[in-house]
This record gives sequence, structure tokens and C-alpha cells, in this order.
Amino acid sequence: MPALKSAQSLDKLNGRTVLVDMDNTIVDWDAEFIRRYAAACGRDPQEVEKIVRNRAKFEIEENFPEAERAKVLETVASPGLYESLKPLPGAVEALQALVAEGVDVKLVTAPHPTCAGTCALEKYLSVEQIFGTAFQERLIITRDKTQVQGDILIDDKPKISGCKPCPWKHVLFSQSYNQDVQGKVRLSSWTAWRDVLPRAF
Amino acid sequence: MPALKSAQSLDKLNGRTVLVDMDNTIVDWDAEFIRRYAAACGRDPQEVEKIVRNRAKFEIEENFPEAERAKVLETVASPGLYESLKPLPGAVEALQALVAEGVDVKLVTAPHPTCAGTCALEKYLSVEQIFGTAFQERLIITRDKTQVQGDILIDDKPKISGCKPCPWKHVLFSQSYNQDVQGKVRLSSWTAWRDVLPRAF
Repeated sequence: MPALKSAQSLDKLNGRTVLVDMDNTIVDWDAEFIRRYAAACGRDPQEVEKIVRNRAKFEIEENFPEAERAKVLETVASPGLYESLKPLPGAVEALQALVAEGVDVKLVTAPHPTCAGTCALEKYLSVEQIFGTAFQERLIITRDKTQVQGDILIDDKPKISGCKPCPWKHVLFSQSYNQDVQGKVRLSSWTAWRDVLPRAF
Repeated sequence: MPALKSAQSLDKLNGRTVLVDMDNTIVDWDAEFIRRYAAACGRDPQEVEKIVRNRAKFEIEENFPEAERAKVLETVASPGLYESLKPLPGAVEALQALVAEGVDVKLVTAPHPTCAGTCALEKYLSVEQIFGTAFQERLIITRDKTQVQGDILIDDKPKISGCKPCPWKHVLFSQSYNQDVQGKVRLSSWTAWRDVLPRAF
């Protein structure tokens, strides 16, 4: 009876707080960066895609030669990048279903230090476009995620540190730069949330 | 030995997390609203000041007749308001001294729902102007302050509610609309922080 089993598992979620990162967890940050960086440098987008999608390091600029890093950071801070991000497959449906299950869903995101203010503005606009105005209330913008209370945090960042011991359990959203992390519950696609998330508690 | 006593009290602060609201706690939101609302309506600023500075209700629009509320909210959302706010006396010195004492100071602020995105942008610009770029890392933007971990929250709002039980102790920053609140440690001026804050723990 897989339907019944699934319903029982989802009961575990009701009343919980699920924090969710945005860039490369909910929205495809890489896709927009690849498009913009290739255009800015006059390079083949497929060549840039190969570097970005297979990168070993979380911080984007660390995957490029020293001479290119200023241009990389300039692209990160280019107006409209954070407003143009498209959702990853299944992400919107998953978060809406979680809300319908009685879950306190919050989007917890750190603004990039090169453009903190405009990044914050664009994140509000992006949430409005993707989820509707009411969802803006669920947005928490902070550089330190360890200060935000919750049961789990779904995030692609390999290691999340800050001022406090982590109050939540880190569910790792799979990306190339976190493949070697062991011992964490891993969400490889939003379509798998019903199976993966109840196991995280 | 008042100097020694004061030093001993301040020891209590080291390593603590002090969350601080912005509008009407760190910056004089009322002053800029009064200026803009009087200009928008062609009214005497002193007349508007009397209403605003003596108001009984926290939400600004609730202190004006029904017919004026749309204009009030339009003023709240007017571009540049949150970027123009000036610090309250002693606020900057107090927060810098707290940081020097080894306190984890975070600014925790809710964007106004009429202008959430631009409000967030302007709050980053405002923090940069008032405290310098490095302080932007201390900004946490959230509608729900009960999800932010800390030892105390200094805030002018009479009652702070959200999804969680409050994890911090609420120190009330005095304003006209919170005069009747009993049973909370009260900070009436930033110049008094050395005496008041150690008593809050």
C-alpha cells in the first residue's frame, strides 16, 4: 500500500518548519550566470556551462582562473541577474505542496556581498514572480543561517557555518560541488521530496 | 565604585546575541514620515508631528481618519523613505560599543508589506550609510522575528508574535504607542544602554 505509506510519512511534516535556500536549490542560478558570463566575455555558452555545471567549488569565482575572477564577480553583481532566475524542475510544486501539508515553509537566503542591497530587492521580485505576492512573507534574508530556527534547512552549500550551532538538520540539495559530502540526507531532485524529506526528521 | 560595577555588568553581555529592530528603535522613522506626509498633503508639519509622535497605535495608518489612510500608506511606500532615515540619538555609538564588547549584534527588521522589495534594498543602503559596509552582514530581513535566535530583541513594537515561541527576551524601546505595556525591561534612550541591557539577562 504505497499510497497509505506515503500519507503516513507526510504526517511527519505537519507543523514542522522547513527552511529552503534559493540559489541553486529553488532557482537555477547557474543557468542565468552561464548565459550572462558567456555574453559578457563573448565565449561559447556550452564551454562556460561545462565549467559551471561541473565545478568542484561552491564559490563561483574559485572555479575560474585568477585573471577571470573580477569579470566573474562583475557578472554576479550585474543588474537583473537575481530577478531573472527560473525555478528548478518541481521546486514550485514541492513548496506549494509542503504549505498545503501544513508546513511552515520559509525561504532563507544570503544576499551576495558584492550586491547585497539590489540582490535583496531582486529576491523579493523573484519570489513574487515565481510564487505570488503572498509568498514574500516567507522570505528571510540573512548572511547567517544558523540564527534561523527550523527543523530542516534544504541547501546546496556543502558546509553551513555561522555564529550559532545549527538549530536545524541540513538536507543537502545535490550539485556538482557537494558530491563528496557524506552523512547528510540528500535531495537530488524536487520530484523526490515526498520520499526524502520525511526521512530527514 | 561605579566604574567597576559598570564593567562587571558589561561582562554579562560578552558572547551574547543582541537583536535590534531598526524603525523607531535605531532610526527615526517618524521624522521622515512626518516630513513626507505633511509635504504630500500640504499640511503643517507640526500638526502632523503632534499626531504621529503621540499616537496610541503602532501601525501608523490606524492613527489617521479612514479617509486619509490610503495617502498614509502611499507615503510609507514612497521611494527613498527607508534610505533617508536618520539615527536616533546615541544609537550608532551604542551598537558600535556593543560590538566592541564582544556582542553578536544583529539588526532584525521586517520590510513594510506595501513595499517589501524596495524597503529591503533601502535598508541595506541605510545600514551602509549609517554604520559602514561591513555592518550590512549584520542585517536580517524577516517578517517573523520569532524565528531568529538571540538572547534579547530590542524593539519598539508592543507585542511581537510569529510562528514560534519567542526565543529571546523582548526589551521594549520606548515610544508613545507602547507606554501602557507592563512587565518588560524598557530602554527609553540609547544613552542608558549600559545600565539597562545587563539587567535584561
